[in-house]
Amino acid sequence: MAYNVVPLTRLIEQFERLPGIGRKTAQRLAFYVLAMPKEKARQFADTILEAHEKIKRCKVCQSLTESELCPICGDESRDRGIICVVESSQDIMAFERTREYHGLYHVLHGLISPMDGVGPDQLTIKELLARMGDGTVKEVVMATNPTVEGEATAMYIARLLKPMGVKVTRLAYGIPIGGNLEYADEVTLYRALEGRSEI
Amino acid sequence: MAYNVVPLTRLIEQFERLPGIGRKTAQRLAFYVLAMPKEKARQFADTILEAHEKIKRCKVCQSLTESELCPICGDESRDRGIICVVESSQDIMAFERTREYHGLYHVLHGLISPMDGVGPDQLTIKELLARMGDGTVKEVVMATNPTVEGEATAMYIARLLKPMGVKVTRLAYGIPIGGNLEYADEVTLYRALEGRSEI
Repeated sequence: MAYNVVPLTRLIEQFERLPGIGRKTAQRLAFYVLAMPKEKARQFADTILEAHEKIKRCKVCQSLTESELCPICGDESRDRGIICVVESSQDIMAFERTREYHGLYHVLHGLISPMDGVGPDQLTIKELLARMGDGTVKEVVMATNPTVEGEATAMYIARLLKPMGVKVTRLAYGIPIGGNLEYADEVTLYRALEGRSEI
Repeated sequence: MAYNVVPLTRLIEQFERLPGIGRKTAQRLAFYVLAMPKEKARQFADTILEAHEKIKRCKVCQSLTESELCPICGDESRDRGIICVVESSQDIMAFERTREYHGLYHVLHGLISPMDGVGPDQLTIKELLARMGDGTVKEVVMATNPTVEGEATAMYIARLLKPMGVKVTRLAYGIPIGGNLEYADEVTLYRALEGRSEI
């Protein structure tokens, strides 16, 4: 292509590497960032670096946080008898939005996936088991995604937790609220039927 | 929300400001950038700053470039008798992808839009008129978007160019190739009918 501005192409490529961003969107974003006032662009760049510098893992639940202890683990009003195990810190945000869960979390930072070379040791399973020590935790809710890797990881962790006398549960499967039966896949529909309850 | 990690929230907000990026996508992108190795994140931030520092406007066509003259204006093999006038440098990329246009460009860096407080003086119209000086340019193709602002800008510029003895044309309107008649809006369809040609 005759029109090739290297720093611009490089910026487009950076955006293209982000998940779910194709060539055209990457171009649009790069041009937008380029058209920003220099001050705003610097702020954007600084925010990326600042996030990398300031954010670490909570020493208890392993979620992303600025301090030693994340705001949830540090919150005295949360129920310390229940831990919800999730794949990533992002999932915590989803649960918190429900405003209905008041227990603690544990972030695995991934799922067991032999295909991608991720074994149990790369996750924070050791740290999860360590939290069972003093008998405060009565229940662990496995809230990994309903995928092959999510299920396998939940099963693996459940097998380790059960001998420790902890109740292990998992999220219910079923039709999403507001969803359309017509569009539900067979597996979801089967799981919804299997998990039916009396009304 | 109990789970509020300030540098992360700030990063999410930065992504959310980009065009076409909603809250959920911004979250996904922010978490992705955070999970990058520190080295890669620094590279991303640097690319943003580098683009801002190195990219300027071509002194002839006003498109974005690293040097005094953009690669197209500097290319001796391009037809200097025709100039395609576009809204932004992004549009040049689209034309170059066709591999069928071998003339020059002129980038307006916007469209006349009284609603947004953009008048003719904020665009590079003065620079376009200056290019007509020596009589090399025989034709100017107005290739602004087919919107109210695009049309108005094209008309405004055409009125200035015509007295200078330059042929002014505009892109054809019609049905997009591969498009479906059923989905074409009335105006497009009417324009396609109006512009019909014998086969």
